[in-house]
Order: sequence, then C-alpha cells, then structure tokens
Amino acid sequence: MSHIQAEHLKVQTLGPCKFDSPISDWLVKRAAFKPGIGVHDRMLYHDHLSSLTEYAVMDHERVPSFEIAGPRAKLFWKPKKVKAGIVTCGGLCPGLNDVIRGLVMVLHHRYNVTNIQGFRYGYEGLNPAFGHTPLQLTPQVVKDIHHDGGTILGSSRGPQDTEVMVNYLMDRGINVLFAIGGDGTQRGALALSQKAREMGKPISVIGIPKTIDNDVRFVEQSFGFQTAFTKAVEAIKAAHTEARSAQNGIGIIKLMGRHSGFIAAYAALAVNDANFVLIPEVDFPLEGENSILEALEKRLQRRDHAVIVVAEGAGQKYCSASAGTDKSGNQRLGDPGLFLKEKITNHFKSLNKPITVKYIDPSYMIRGCPATPHDSVLCFRLAAYAAHAAMSGRTEMVIGKWHGKFVHVPTQAAVSIRQQVNPFGDLWLSVIEATGQPRWEPAEDCALH
Amino acid sequence: MSHIQAEHLKVQTLGPCKFDSPISDWLVKRAAFKPGIGVHDRMLYHDHLSSLTEYAVMDHERVPSFEIAGPRAKLFWKPKKVKAGIVTCGGLCPGLNDVIRGLVMVLHHRYNVTNIQGFRYGYEGLNPAFGHTPLQLTPQVVKDIHHDGGTILGSSRGPQDTEVMVNYLMDRGINVLFAIGGDGTQRGALALSQKAREMGKPISVIGIPKTIDNDVRFVEQSFGFQTAFTKAVEAIKAAHTEARSAQNGIGIIKLMGRHSGFIAAYAALAVNDANFVLIPEVDFPLEGENSILEALEKRLQRRDHAVIVVAEGAGQKYCSASAGTDKSGNQRLGDPGLFLKEKITNHFKSLNKPITVKYIDPSYMIRGCPATPHDSVLCFRLAAYAAHAAMSGRTEMVIGKWHGKFVHVPTQAAVSIRQQVNPFGDLWLSVIEATGQPRWEPAEDCALH
Amino acid sequence: MSHIQAEHLKVQTLGPCKFDSPISDWLVKRAAFKPGIGVHDRMLYHDHLSSLTEYAVMDHERVPSFEIAGPRAKLFWKPKKVKAGIVTCGGLCPGLNDVIRGLVMVLHHRYNVTNIQGFRYGYEGLNPAFGHTPLQLTPQVVKDIHHDGGTILGSSRGPQDTEVMVNYLMDRGINVLFAIGGDGTQRGALALSQKAREMGKPISVIGIPKTIDNDVRFVEQSFGFQTAFTKAVEAIKAAHTEARSAQNGIGIIKLMGRHSGFIAAYAALAVNDANFVLIPEVDFPLEGENSILEALEKRLQRRDHAVIVVAEGAGQKYCSASAGTDKSGNQRLGDPGLFLKEKITNHFKSLNKPITVKYIDPSYMIRGCPATPHDSVLCFRLAAYAAHAAMSGRTEMVIGKWHGKFVHVPTQAAVSIRQQVNPFGDLWLSVIEATGQPRWEPAEDCALH
Amino acid sequence: MSHIQAEHLKVQTLGPCKFDSPISDWLVKRAAFKPGIGVHDRMLYHDHLSSLTEYAVMDHERVPSFEIAGPRAKLFWKPKKVKAGIVTCGGLCPGLNDVIRGLVMVLHHRYNVTNIQGFRYGYEGLNPAFGHTPLQLTPQVVKDIHHDGGTILGSSRGPQDTEVMVNYLMDRGINVLFAIGGDGTQRGALALSQKAREMGKPISVIGIPKTIDNDVRFVEQSFGFQTAFTKAVEAIKAAHTEARSAQNGIGIIKLMGRHSGFIAAYAALAVNDANFVLIPEVDFPLEGENSILEALEKRLQRRDHAVIVVAEGAGQKYCSASAGTDKSGNQRLGDPGLFLKEKITNHFKSLNKPITVKYIDPSYMIRGCPATPHDSVLCFRLAAYAAHAAMSGRTEMVIGKWHGKFVHVPTQAAVSIRQQVNPFGDLWLSVIEATGQPRWEPAEDCALH
Repeated sequence: MSHIQAEHLKVQTLGPCKFDSPISDWLVKRAAFKPGIGVHDRMLYHDHLSSLTEYAVMDHERVPSFEIAGPRAKLFWKPKKVKAGIVTCGGLCPGLNDVIRGLVMVLHHRYNVTNIQGFRYGYEGLNPAFGHTPLQLTPQVVKDIHHDGGTILGSSRGPQDTEVMVNYLMDRGINVLFAIGGDGTQRGALALSQKAREMGKPISVIGIPKTIDNDVRFVEQSFGFQTAFTKAVEAIKAAHTEARSAQNGIGIIKLMGRHSGFIAAYAALAVNDANFVLIPEVDFPLEGENSILEALEKRLQRRDHAVIVVAEGAGQKYCSASAGTDKSGNQRLGDPGLFLKEKITNHFKSLNKPITVKYIDPSYMIRGCPATPHDSVLCFRLAAYAAHAAMSGRTEMVIGKWHGKFVHVPTQAAVSIRQQVNPFGDLWLSVIEATGQPRWEPAEDCALH
Repeated sequence: MSHIQAEHLKVQTLGPCKFDSPISDWLVKRAAFKPGIGVHDRMLYHDHLSSLTEYAVMDHERVPSFEIAGPRAKLFWKPKKVKAGIVTCGGLCPGLNDVIRGLVMVLHHRYNVTNIQGFRYGYEGLNPAFGHTPLQLTPQVVKDIHHDGGTILGSSRGPQDTEVMVNYLMDRGINVLFAIGGDGTQRGALALSQKAREMGKPISVIGIPKTIDNDVRFVEQSFGFQTAFTKAVEAIKAAHTEARSAQNGIGIIKLMGRHSGFIAAYAALAVNDANFVLIPEVDFPLEGENSILEALEKRLQRRDHAVIVVAEGAGQKYCSASAGTDKSGNQRLGDPGLFLKEKITNHFKSLNKPITVKYIDPSYMIRGCPATPHDSVLCFRLAAYAAHAAMSGRTEMVIGKWHGKFVHVPTQAAVSIRQQVNPFGDLWLSVIEATGQPRWEPAEDCALH
Repeated sequence: MSHIQAEHLKVQTLGPCKFDSPISDWLVKRAAFKPGIGVHDRMLYHDHLSSLTEYAVMDHERVPSFEIAGPRAKLFWKPKKVKAGIVTCGGLCPGLNDVIRGLVMVLHHRYNVTNIQGFRYGYEGLNPAFGHTPLQLTPQVVKDIHHDGGTILGSSRGPQDTEVMVNYLMDRGINVLFAIGGDGTQRGALALSQKAREMGKPISVIGIPKTIDNDVRFVEQSFGFQTAFTKAVEAIKAAHTEARSAQNGIGIIKLMGRHSGFIAAYAALAVNDANFVLIPEVDFPLEGENSILEALEKRLQRRDHAVIVVAEGAGQKYCSASAGTDKSGNQRLGDPGLFLKEKITNHFKSLNKPITVKYIDPSYMIRGCPATPHDSVLCFRLAAYAAHAAMSGRTEMVIGKWHGKFVHVPTQAAVSIRQQVNPFGDLWLSVIEATGQPRWEPAEDCALH
Repeated sequence: MSHIQAEHLKVQTLGPCKFDSPISDWLVKRAAFKPGIGVHDRMLYHDHLSSLTEYAVMDHERVPSFEIAGPRAKLFWKPKKVKAGIVTCGGLCPGLNDVIRGLVMVLHHRYNVTNIQGFRYGYEGLNPAFGHTPLQLTPQVVKDIHHDGGTILGSSRGPQDTEVMVNYLMDRGINVLFAIGGDGTQRGALALSQKAREMGKPISVIGIPKTIDNDVRFVEQSFGFQTAFTKAVEAIKAAHTEARSAQNGIGIIKLMGRHSGFIAAYAALAVNDANFVLIPEVDFPLEGENSILEALEKRLQRRDHAVIVVAEGAGQKYCSASAGTDKSGNQRLGDPGLFLKEKITNHFKSLNKPITVKYIDPSYMIRGCPATPHDSVLCFRLAAYAAHAAMSGRTEMVIGKWHGKFVHVPTQAAVSIRQQVNPFGDLWLSVIEATGQPRWEPAEDCALH
C-alpha cells in the first residue's frame, strides 16, 4: 500500500450496536468530563501541518503546533566558540547520568565542542559562594557513568540568585547551558536566560525535564518513569507476599506521585497483585458506603488478605498537615501511607478483627536505580535533541515529546500544564478492571476538572 | 494555562543560524529521502479531527484518520450470548500470556462473558484433524500465567484451511475470535472473517499483532519489543566482556529483526558497547573503502577489541542462500552472523593478525522471557481494547497504536505497511553517533525507498 | 593421586618469617579470644570417624560427632501408614515454599506418602480454636510455588498449647510432622514430640531451622540467607547513590540481624560501597576518640559522602528501650538506624555542617523475595533430608549442616548455640579491610566471649 | 551450652527400622561404590587436629591435614620490598575482576605493597615476545571493576616457555606472583616457581583456582560456579517455555561441565523444569530399554513436551570425534547437545511423530557475567587469603576450601584430584528425584570408580 487514504482506515463492523454496555453510565460521565475527546472522534493519520494541508484549509497562524526536534543544517553557534555547562537539580531520578553522558557524547563527537563543564550540586554550583569546582566533562569521564544511578554532578534543592548565577556563567564564558530538573529548575533556567538576554549576553538555555512522577504534559513519558514503575513492581510483589502469608494480612506500599498517580497506576497494572490503588487524581471516601474501609472489610472476608498501593499525593485532604514547603518551594505532603496504616489498624481493632499490616516505602531504592535499557535509550535521545537545539540557538525551551515524537516546547508552556491520570480515561479504567476496586469520583486536585 | 494557543508553542531563538552543521550534507540527503517530513515542518498539537475543526476547514471524507479504541456505550453482542475464542500463532514473543490473561479478565469481569475457549497450538487448534482439545479459560486459570513466558495455549506455524476452521468455530458456537500473531496470522484471521460473513454467520475477528521485531507500521511499539531489547542488552554486554578479555577479541551478536532493525538499534543504543550495528534497512560494503572490514581493522588497531550487533535480516545480499520458505510462508534468511564470523576470520587470517571471535545467538533466551512490567501493562491494555472492539461488533481489524494512542486499524492496512528504521531518521543518527560506525546507504530492502 | 597422604598436603615455604605483620598485635588478641583455633593448627582431611580411625586411636564414646543425614535402607514407618503434616512459623524468609515443595515431592515420589497436610498460619493451624482448615498437599498443588516468595501455608508468631496441638494431630492421625521455623518454633516442636511420646503416640517431629539472620551454629548457612544478602546489596547500592549525589550525603541502611551480623557483613563485602558496618557482635563508641561520629567526620572531610550499614541488633546499649517482647517471646529491639540518623543529624548540626541523611529499611522487600537458585537447591536438599530422617523414625532433631555436609542435630543442641560473626575472625577482618572502618572491640552480646 | 560433648549430638529415634526403603537396593550399591563413607559413619564435630587431640591419640605425622589459611603475625617478605604480579589465564569465569580487585586492595591497604603489576592476556603477558605492557594496579584503578564481567587484564590460553617467563619476572623484580586460572595455569605456575628456586631467586607463587565447572576437589566450591548455575537457570526456563509452547516441543540446553556435571545438576535442581540431566559422571544408553530415547518417548506421550539439560562432557562415548586438543592442552570434546538434537530428530522422524526441537547454548552469556553477591564475597576472601599466604612466603600452593574453611593446598595435590558429582551421592539422588529420570550407571569417566 503505497499511500494511505481515508478509506484504507475504515473499520469493518458487523452491524448496529443495540445493547447497553455494563459501564454505559460511566462512559456518559466520561464524555461530560472531558468533552470533545469522545470515542466517536477520529484520530488524524497525519501529524505534520504540511502533510495535512493536502486535505484541509489551514489557518496556520492559529493552528497550535510544535516545532520538531532534531539536528539543523545551519547552526547559530560556531562549534569552536561554544562553552557548554550542565547542571542537575532536585531529587534523584533514574537516567540522570545517561543524560549527562549523552550530552557530552553528542556535543563532543558530533559538534566538536570540547569545553563542557559539569556544575556540582545543582544551582549551588552556579553560586561561587558555595565554592564548588565544576567537573571538566569529556567522553573519557562519562563513558561508563550510565551504569550507575544518581548523578555524577551531585544535586541540591532550591533556587539561587539569578544575577549571581548569570555573572558566574559569563565569567566562565558559558554560552550554552543544559538544565536537568523539575518545574522549579526549569523556571530557574527561564529566569536565567531572560536575565542573560537583558544583560546583552544571551545564553542558549535548554531544559531536559526530570520528573519521576511523569507529570509534565508536554513530555508524555519522562525519563526514569519506566524504571520507577518497573522497580515499584518489586515492592508490590513483596507486599503481596507478606499480606498473603498472614491471616488478614494487609500490605501498604507508598509510591512516588505528588500530583499524578502514573507510577502507582502502571505498577499496579503490571503486576496485578494490588487490590486498591489510591492516586491524587481520584477521591476516596474513608468510611461508610463505597469507602476504602468498607471495601477492605469485604475483601478480607472474601480473600483473607489485601494489598493497597498509595501514591504519596493521594488522600491529602485527610492527611496534609500544615507542613510548609521544602527548599524547592514544593508544598510538603502529609503521608497517606502512615495515615492509612493507622486508620486501618484502629478500624479493625474497633471491629475486634485481628489484622497484620506491613508498610513499605521503597522510595530511595527506586530513585537511586540505574535506568532500564528503555530509559537509557530515551535519555540518550533527549540529550541528543537538547544538544541539537542548543547549537541552533534555541533557548528558554525544553525537549518534550508529543504524540510519540520529540518536539521543542517553550519552557513557559511546559511548566504550566501538568499531566495527570484522567479519572475517566482508559488507563484508569484498566486499573479499576484489574483491581476490582470501587469507581470513585475525580479529586479536586485533578487538573482536568 | 487553561487553553493552549498557537503562540504558546513558539520557541525562542537567539538569532539566525549562520554556520554549517557538520552533518549538513547528510541532512540534505535525508530531506530528499523522505520529503515532507522535514524539520521545518511543525507537529500538530491536536490529533483529533473534531478538535482540529476549530482551526481548519476539513474535508472529513478525505482526511485519513483512525477510529479510536475504547469501550463503547452500546454493544453489538449481547454479553450472555458471546462465546469467545483465543488463538496464539507463530514464534514466541514475551507477553503472550499477558494478552491471554487480559482478554479473559476483561471479557469475564467487565462483560460477564463466561464461555471463553483457548484453542491449542495455533491454527491447528481450529482444525479438528489435529484432535487438540481447547482449554476452557477462566480468571482462575489465567490468574498467574503472566509470570511465565511463552503461551499456555501453545503455538504452531502456518495456516490451516479457512473453511475447515470456520466450520469448526460455528460448530462450537464461537462468535468472537481473538487472533494473536504476526502478518500471516492476521491474513488468516481476515480470510476467516470474510468466509464466515460469506456463510452468513459473521464472527467478530479481532487481531492483536505480535511482532517481536516491532515491524508493523500502525502499531508503533509492539508488545514484547521492549522486553526483547532489554534482554538483548545482556547478550551485548556478555559479548563485550568476551571481546575485551582477549587481544583482538571480536564479539558478534545476532539479534532478531528479519526486515526491521529496531531491536539491534535500541539494544545497541541502550548499552553503548557495540561498535557496529548492521540492520536490514542499511547496506554495508564488505571490503574496500568505507567497508565493515576496513572499519573493523581500524577499530582493532585503535582499541584491540570490537563488538558487532547484527540483525538477522541484515546483509542478506551476501548470505541469503536459496533457502526456501518456512511453514508460515516467510522467506528463510541466510545467517549474517555466521557469514560475518567466517568472513572476518578469513580476512584477518590473510592479514596474519590473530583474532578471537565469539558468536552469540540469544534468540530463544529472549523469545521465552516473561514480559517486563512495561510490556505487561501494554499487553493488558491491548487485550482490554480488543475485548471492547469485539463487543461492539468490529471485525477484520487489529488493535494498533498511533501517535501514542490506541486505535482500530483495518487488518488489510495493518499487514500492508511495514515499520522500518528510517536510515536518515534521528534514531539511526543516534546509533551512528553512539557507535562511531561509518554512515552507509539505505538498503534495497528499505521500504521507505 | 589415588590416596591422599599427610605429606601430600604439606605446603612449600620460601623460608622463615622475620617481619612483623601490620596487624600482628590484633592477631595476638585474636588468639587469646578463641584459644585453640589458631592459624598454626591444622585442619583434618578426614571428617568421618571411621576414616580417621586408620590414623588415630579414638575414644568413640567421647569424640563429639554428628549423625550423617541421608536416606536409610530401612525405614521405621511403613510408607502407606504415614500421615504427614507441615507447618511454617514466624517471619517470612526466602525459600519457605521451596522447602514445602521439596517435602511434598520427596515424600510423594520417593516414599509414596500421599496424605500430606499443610497446616495454616503457623501453630495456630494446630489449634482447632482458630478454625483454620489444613491444605491437602500434592505434587500438583506445590509444583510451581517456589517461584513465589512467602509461604502458601501462611504463618503466625508465637506458641500454642502443646497438649491441644498433640490432641489435634492425633485426631487427624498425623505421625510425621515437619516444623519450619526459628528457635521458638523448634522449642515448640520439641515439646510437642515429648508430649506425644508421653502420651504413648510418638510422632516423628523433624525441624528445618529457618533463620534469615543465619544465626544457628549447627546450620552453618541457613536457607534464605544468601537471598537476603543478595537483595540487601541493592539497598546498599541505592543508599550509596543517594549519598554520593548530595554534598555530605549520608546513607544509612538497616538490615536484618538481631544477634548476628552476617547479612550486614556479607552484603557490605559483596558490594564494597559501605564505609561503616555495625553489627551486634562488635561494640562501637558513639563519640570521642575512635568513635563512629569521629570517623564519620573524617570520612566526610575526605570524601564528601558516607554509607553506614547497621544490623538491627547493633548498638542496643544505646537504643534498646524497655520495649518488651513480641508474641514469639523475642526481646523487642530498639531501632539503631533511626537512633543513628538522629544522633548524626544533631551532631553535624552542632558542628554547623550541613548534611543530607537518607535512611533505608528494606526489610520487607527482602523477606518476601523468592529464593535465589542457590537457596532453591539448598531448600530442596534440606527437605529431602528431613523426609529421609522422618521415615527412619528420627525425632526431636533438625537438619543441620556441618563442615559443608548435611547432618542430624538434636533440637536441644541446635537451639542452644548461636552462630555469630567472630569479631576476630577472617570474615570480619575482610569487612574491616574493605570498609577501612576502625577496629572496635567485641560486644558484650558476642557469645564467643 | 558452653561445651559440646558427644552425648549432646545423639539423635532421638522412635525405634528400630523394620521396613525396606524403596531405594534400599540402590543404597547397597552406593555403599559398595564408595566404601567407608556410609550413612552409619558419623561426622566429626572437631576439624582441627589440636581440638581433636583431647579425645584421640593422634599420629600427627600420618594424619592427613591442611594448613589453615589466614594472616600470619610474622611475614617472610618485607612489605616495602614486595613487587607483586597478577595474571589471569584461560576462559572467562565470573569473579575474575573481583579477585584482582581483592588482591590489590588487601596488598595495598593491609600490607602497604604499592608496586602491583597486572600482566596482560594470560601467560603471554610474561613473554616479552608478545610485547604486552603490564597495567600498574592501584586501588583507584580497581575500585569499580567488580561491576563488570571478564578480566581487565585480558586472558589467553596455553603455556609459555617457563624460563622466558622467569627471566621476565626477575628483570622486573617481581617476587610475588598470583596466578588465577585452571589446571593448566596452576601447573605452569608450579613450574615457574620451581624454576625460580632453581635459579636462586625464589618467588612466592600463589594460585587461585579458577574453574567454572567446580571440578577441583580441594576447592569445594569454586568462585564463579554459583553465578554460572544461577544464570544457567534462565536458559533452562527459556528452553522450558519454548518446549511447552509447541506440541511435542523438546528443549535442549548445553551447559558447561567438561568432566563434572555440577552446573547441570545444580541448575536443574534449582528450577525443576528439566526432565533429563546428562552429566559426564553418569552413563546413559541411547536406545532400547531404560534409554534416553525410550524415556523421552514416554515423557512426550504423558506430557507433550520435554527439557534436556546436558553438560558439555556428557555422552562423549557417542560424540567425541578425534578432535585433538586446544591450546591449553585440553582434549577437545564432541558436542553432545548437537548430537542429541540430531539423534532425537531422526528417531522421531522414523516414528513418524512430529516434534519441535530447540537447542540453546548459553555458554558465553554465562561466562561473561559479573559475579553474584555471594561470588563477590568469595572472591574477595580468596584474594585476601592469597595475599596473606604470599606475604608469609608460601609458594607452589593454591587457596582451597575444605569442610567450609579456607586452607592452603599444595598445587601438586590440587591439580591431581578432580571433584565430580558422586553418581551415588545425595546431590545426584535429588536430581533423580526432581526429574524422575531413569537411574543410570556411573560412567567410565567418573573418577570415583
């Protein structure tokens, strides 16, 4: 088939559908929740503006679209004149070393950029007050670092003064900076680029979004996320084993996910040992009808054990103390795992039913892992695209992924929209099917609302 | 940011690009190779026809688009009347049991379909001449099968007589059939559905494409593929270890990939121990200037050891004997791994340079693995979508993935377009960057030509 | 060499030793600590009494020796009349299912014993008051259980009334009982056998010692121990990664080991990322000269990060609150990991030196694992020996290992001597060499004292 | 219990044994096969000559015994004057880098030996004709090498001229040499030490036996062996999956084991998926009564699939061509895996029964692995003992293990006795119990004969 045409993509059906689905009410609710993304819509074969023009009259100025990532034939920077810097910020995430390695390899081998400095311990490394000396990065230095978790540059949380950092970079002649980090880091990078332009010494500042929670909308699947849920599966299996081995054994696993429950959802779906998955996007009643405690009682009656996977941002309305914010300015969360452990223990004590609760928090054992092969490939490619973007003079943008392809995303857009599990989406539907847990309502925190 | 508009996605640049890229010639070639997918194109933000209508005047009849997969509010089949069948065909691929499990779980728990039969040993199981008795599949039977590789149903290669199979299905009252297999299997399923309609007893025949090579265009990433390259990484590491431990040690790893080199490319990129990656899509001269042997000589001089990853379909012009076809009708391939081993051995013997060649073929150790957590999730979701499609009366289609979303693809379209590594694409560029191997020309076999 | 003679085992030396070893003082201390096991002793080639008789005049009655485990040509029980029971007690340990599986396989296939009952939830399953129904165990039931961690029988802590249990067993006609559990469990099994003999209805009660800590003297290496330290290595690696990625990062890993630090010692030695290993057998000063805090300060000055592995029973003199005992009668321990975390945090706060401490407790992720292949083999063999012992009418004994060979150990002897890390032994010397930590004195708790 | 006495180790029995065991005939054969190691023998509690003296009148000169390994208070070599060399020879084995690392760490940190040279590519590195430059080994160089398989020094097969090597070592002032390798390597090391003594310049030559097959009698469990069978388990699982997924599927896995079937036996026992285990120590009839082909027919009739594990040295009487010897002087073996594949294929063709045979040879994927944590610990300890032995002036010996303890073994004794699976031992009995295969007779090759 040399050229796909519309009729090639028509699906055969046996006839009209006359019977109600067992979840037809839920499907109606879903259509109302996010109108316009219904199952009767069709998905475009083409995703490039130019290809589509053949079929549609486009108002190119108005059609939202992304610049495609990739190497350009013409460069803004003369490779010989480039002095590049790399900085890693915030909590650990599998793949950081892979990204550093990829940046150095592509800058060096592809563009002959030989002056690459690795700033130590996050933005602290751009503030001379801390006295950290940068690492000189060469292919020899980074050759094997992807076998280890963490970041050879070290990391720290929180911002530093923008002007101080820009002055530091200028003193060292850095004209290209790669910032690997989360929302706060990218906002800092944006401020830094703007300040540099203001000061008449523009720097290409390219971000590589780091979010183990997979919660950046324009990244689709962030590096480290697959490694994270792959490792999380082991924790769920262990909790399941403990739960099954005691009468009325209950295993609780707290997983990463401040605002988005992707790790919990994917890990639970992968291993099918969880009976309840609690995520920030979905509300759950504690007691009474259709509640977690009621469902847990029934589960124990029926099967003698239960496994609960809870994302760290779930159930905050029950457990978020006025805990203030951390150094990076993120709201501190209450611990829904410990909260549930206590609540469940007291509940069954009041029912006079002996239970055994085991609580697992594998957080650091996940964050410190080396990347899986899939994430290694992803990191190398993100790094290559970041290098290409920098060489072409882009700035104030991050490398994103959209519809499975790598794109340039303005940092402002990237940090403004969070990716969350759609409480009416097919992913969550699969979780409900796999666990058999009650269908609960979307949470207030769910950005799709 | 409540609503993304075109200007939100504009990327900041520091100014015009005046310098030639080191690969600008190659980028020109690339644009010529696959015109219209250039880096100056932009990628659409919207991928739903209905969303795009806001910005564009659409000729809906002509714009190629896919039906979106998912549960429908109305069903074609009355759940109580459904008798479902499942069949797995062809070579092993990680995740087969996950798909079987997912189908049974969703049919049973979501649609209350309780009569589900697993036909044994591929299409043989639909031919009474073989005398195989189907397995009755229940949630209890499939509960833990995803922990094992392979398929509990067994498999076989090659077709059976269509009419015989349709009669067999009708005798047993099967009205929904799931066919898990490759190209040949899906063609067989198509014929089967057409024959059943002809005979006035339509069956919903839904395919789940199985291709460890990841070579189906409308599937984007097939189940088992990630598991395959994840395991392949171990073989490359072992070959690298053997190569480094001998003076002039050469490790050759043959990986799966009859027509598409994705496994070789991803595995090599993940681990970065390979110095040469040979895939069906890219030609390579054997001897003389810019050839593999010349490059290998240089590599040994410089580094004393080398690792070659070769996809089974690479270099066929050198090694494909007139080997005929297998039972499924696939052309038998020559073995480029053994061919290279001999060629290289003779070459260095003639140069009087002692070398040590170790040849690794990990094929069965990869095909028989259980799925990684990522592939387990993918399989469960593919199965859920297949169940939804069947219940709504679709037929002669497979579950595909397009731009990261699950879609319905007519079987005819699915089997007619192969997915291959684009020899001018960014993935292959990354492989060249990571290995340092010569840039070779696209092969004749490369469908993009 | 057909027959080894004394002279064959003489080692060649180059001449007399004239120089002091850097640790000669320590070696003198060591000789004093455990006199008679010095390096000038020689080790016997023969370990069987009968073989040695050729060379030595033996007072057979006085020479301590073990009965060798293995199948006997004559049996006490008529296989047809055997009704066997299996019970698993206490905390989880990798390999429990392997042992259950091995018992069933050997009893069934070797001895044609078909009535095998698996009692649920530890000794609770022998007390009808709990109403647990035993599982009927067959090869079909146990075929694949070794792929999962935990125990299919379930477990519980603590004893039940001996007479109640004996009556329950007699009512069911059980004449052979296998008790898989720790010290408390074996003491319970001993009481049970004695009571049954008293009541004139003897039961063969054979124990298989379960101790993840590897602290039973006559078992040498207990099942599950290798799996435990193999998994513990991952936790140490993760802590190391976290520690290195922060300036003055400190990782603390708490590992199993109530009285014996084998898991901590082996895991630290295997991965070589730990800088301090704290075990129950070795004392450590907190502050001042030669203390952990002083050594930690120096380490941070020199290397910017540190990793501390602490066995749960270490440092009890600092942290054991009057925490009472658990259901099995074990003294509850203070948590030396949390204690150290707080102590270290306060110490460096007082020095005004910012540090980052990450605390990892992987306990449940280790206990719930399936056994490694080595432990699977060990479990199968322990089970086979236990079955052989039971069929020959042995009772009140456990299967042990001595000098690398499986032996029968009277339960009374097995529970009376603890195996501990010798603070002057070569294992601990290797740990000191690998970590560079100070040489500290043996703890009061060290049974070798 | 402060002091174990003979009566503490008496096991309780319920009474005399009156019934015949189902394998009593086999047990009689076993007693005849290896007289003196019967089950009525008892095993000594004490294994030190000095401890035993309390109970027995010893003829110390005649009682065979080993020198115990460990650090000595007095050294032969002045640490400052030591120049050490390390060489690795023969095929790869997991743990080589761990041993190298351990030697460097202990020599450097314990004895302040700073001049340590790593000779490249086996004994070639001691022959200047090859022009290999030694690596200067420091803690910094070897710090992380244990994470990789293979040997950083490289290896080669076969001997070099002894005099040439001794002269080379003397020219460089080497007075301590560590030889890591198999039988041939240790024989070479012995010759080297003898020649050096002859020439009046004695060298401490200490061997660390490397045998992935675990076939050295005085080593009990060689480094790399556990890693090998742990990885072999994966190959068996894959073969099992392939076999089950085809009707009459047969999986054949060839594992290492030239003269000793330990890897095959342990791997098969660990995973319990094998139906036949063929090892060099046990003969098997090909055709006719009680033969492998007959047993295979029955197995396929009963279960539709079969898995065969074959050690590379098994069935040589059927397949060893006159293949000559390799560079190290080892007899080349016929390939019993390919032989069986062909034999089985033809056999069932003649019976007109369609089968599917899959053949897996995971050899290189096993040899190139990094060591498991257990093997890492073992390697570090072997290295430490080797360093201690060398410093005390021992020579012409290897580090062995006897009854679970590390000992010094004269090289002559070590290379003269092979460790094999006892065809009447409990290990092999467990294999027969786990597979259900026929009981076959000991092979001619079985050294215990």
